[in-house]
Amino acid sequence: MGIISALRCRECNKEYSPRFLYICEDCFGPLDVQYKIENGIDKHTFENRTDLTYWRYFEILPIEDKKNIVSLNGSITPLQKADNLGNILGGFKNLYIKNDSVNPTFSFKDRPAGVAVSKAKEMNLAAVGCASTGNLASATAAHAARANLPCYIFAPSDIEDVKIAQALSYGGKFVAVDGTYDDANRIASVIGDSNGYGIVNINMRPYYVEGSKTLAFEVLEQLNWTVPDVLVIPVGSGAMLNAICKGFEEIMNLGLIHDISNLRIIAAQPDGCAPIVDAYKNRSNEVIPVEKPDTVAKSLAIGDPGDGLYVLKRLKQFNGLGEKVTDAEIKDAILLLAKSEGIFTEPAGGVAVGVLKKLIEENKINKDESVVCYVTGNGLKTTESVIDLLPTPNSVKPDIRLVSAMIH
Amino acid sequence: MGIISALRCRECNKEYSPRFLYICEDCFGPLDVQYKIENGIDKHTFENRTDLTYWRYFEILPIEDKKNIVSLNGSITPLQKADNLGNILGGFKNLYIKNDSVNPTFSFKDRPAGVAVSKAKEMNLAAVGCASTGNLASATAAHAARANLPCYIFAPSDIEDVKIAQALSYGGKFVAVDGTYDDANRIASVIGDSNGYGIVNINMRPYYVEGSKTLAFEVLEQLNWTVPDVLVIPVGSGAMLNAICKGFEEIMNLGLIHDISNLRIIAAQPDGCAPIVDAYKNRSNEVIPVEKPDTVAKSLAIGDPGDGLYVLKRLKQFNGLGEKVTDAEIKDAILLLAKSEGIFTEPAGGVAVGVLKKLIEENKINKDESVVCYVTGNGLKTTESVIDLLPTPNSVKPDIRLVSAMIH
Repeated sequence: MGIISALRCRECNKEYSPRFLYICEDCFGPLDVQYKIENGIDKHTFENRTDLTYWRYFEILPIEDKKNIVSLNGSITPLQKADNLGNILGGFKNLYIKNDSVNPTFSFKDRPAGVAVSKAKEMNLAAVGCASTGNLASATAAHAARANLPCYIFAPSDIEDVKIAQALSYGGKFVAVDGTYDDANRIASVIGDSNGYGIVNINMRPYYVEGSKTLAFEVLEQLNWTVPDVLVIPVGSGAMLNAICKGFEEIMNLGLIHDISNLRIIAAQPDGCAPIVDAYKNRSNEVIPVEKPDTVAKSLAIGDPGDGLYVLKRLKQFNGLGEKVTDAEIKDAILLLAKSEGIFTEPAGGVAVGVLKKLIEENKINKDESVVCYVTGNGLKTTESVIDLLPTPNSVKPDIRLVSAMIH
Repeated sequence: MGIISALRCRECNKEYSPRFLYICEDCFGPLDVQYKIENGIDKHTFENRTDLTYWRYFEILPIEDKKNIVSLNGSITPLQKADNLGNILGGFKNLYIKNDSVNPTFSFKDRPAGVAVSKAKEMNLAAVGCASTGNLASATAAHAARANLPCYIFAPSDIEDVKIAQALSYGGKFVAVDGTYDDANRIASVIGDSNGYGIVNINMRPYYVEGSKTLAFEVLEQLNWTVPDVLVIPVGSGAMLNAICKGFEEIMNLGLIHDISNLRIIAAQPDGCAPIVDAYKNRSNEVIPVEKPDTVAKSLAIGDPGDGLYVLKRLKQFNGLGEKVTDAEIKDAILLLAKSEGIFTEPAGGVAVGVLKKLIEENKINKDESVVCYVTGNGLKTTESVIDLLPTPNSVKPDIRLVSAMIH
């Protein structure tokens, strides 16, 4: 298992011994997990493993005793070579969709939630919880069920019914906050700290974000340890984008890849909640919170993104840029992806594909580049977002002549 | 790729050269694919493959040229050791859930539909289609999208909206038949034959059912090529159960396992549509069609099951039995599985888990036995089936004292 050398402050580099701590006591910066790698790791180390879950990368995940792993046993998710979509977008020969909609609770959140709930078990915490726009609620509740831990979910009361039903089915205790995600987040933070509960995306955050790194590890292994030219990443809090960048850096530090200086990172946000992209476009280093997010992409509706400034830094580091798309563009992109590649995503995935399309049209991504577009959630949770664009099926009597006439 | 030696009639054993044919010209029996295995296959042949899709078993799948494979790249699905559920059910130490809800279109149907659409491409057919209770519609439409083939879906008009929205998103052309699944099936059959369209579960059936065999192959590989004692399998048409049995037989014929004579097969059906289980219970060899299926498990609501008689034969061959559960038992089983194992299934999965529970309570499955329970579809498609059993979350103002009071 991973051997944690320290929790290191992302701002002042102060190091702490590993414990239930998430902000620097000196400067309030976020803490990141650092590892001690004891034995040599090469490509074959990972490739030869029979464990198909993201725990195959255990040396760089923050659980010290294997018996504490709480897993829903999801396999490596597909990296689909998207030649149909590539053709439609102008002849891309190396376009890939990382399809993370097929995780055990049907979004990428099984990665960070699985790591955080495992760590909560390792730390012997009495309960877990999360602040959630929906996907994290189910990921946390399902892992908590598997770990036999109580789970408290704090969410804005307007999230999709399907997501609430799913999270409740796993036995999560749901606190529907009349307010925004940021209100739910504040409440969760106080409840977590005052009760010693592990709120996976708040006081467990140093461990939580480590799970999202595996989105980098898997893509690199699936590309046979070659570095793509461009990553298109949907952004809510920004934690996932930052974690993916950390993942690329760690694999380089292990010597499995050698140069990430040409990698370009694209941050994709919805028009109705794009504080990070707006800062990028305004060449500002300040992320101004969006007070009332208004977007069909509810899973990205985080008005005051915790990792906003770090995303801006990552865009500078990786020759990146930020772009946003409207609700209409998001919905069109959902159907474009489904009809060309057979992948049915929620609006967050539509944001990524929509931004990809927009940047290609603006000649900001070239067809000779290899591109990985991250699709992080599942369309079944949000069918209402596309239903008005779909034809209403006319019903017909079971008469062969009537049906033949319909078809021809 | 697989080398097909013949299509063999399941009734009279007459053999045909491989072609677009699905019933015996002599006796109207169904045809099954037979293979010629050229080189020795052992356990390591499969284990060492880097292809994580079910095409890793290509020698015993009916596509002759690799370039015709149409895949959504889904990895091996989880076989979850279900210790929490095993404890609740009385101390089972070797209970496994085969979680097939995490396939690319979120049900096991990606297996047969993927094989059939690939074969339609290999045969150069102009279009594909299916008769569907919902899951197959999406699996067929998504693979058709990837293959750039038109897709016609024939379904009863009362299936779940979510399933319709998903299938339409992939670009499938939807024919909603005012009638039962069996009516839709009849229409699809005539349209397919008269137009030369590959209706995956009708005129492509010999190839289609081969995909479901991979549910046997994966489980055996995941159990390190040991044969479990009991399989619990949800049954609609019966094709999947029959295919799983064929899969166990083929792996035995390859010499990777040696004895399946002690394997017990359980057929699980919903009370509101249980023609096969009723025949089993009445010790009859006749499956009497259910004219108007009435069950929450719509994906199993097949009143006149095509493989009904073959399921009865398989139950005799494998010391099996059939059992059925009510809508209330199905819903309870969905929540039992979600709360104990973090797996959210649709009613068909609830049927399997409900039957498992019932047979354990009746001492028909012993806690010393190793048991694999197949969960074949996803709860997000059918949240309306459990929503009335879930607590309604009360919303609360974002005030820490109010929330604290709610929690304690």
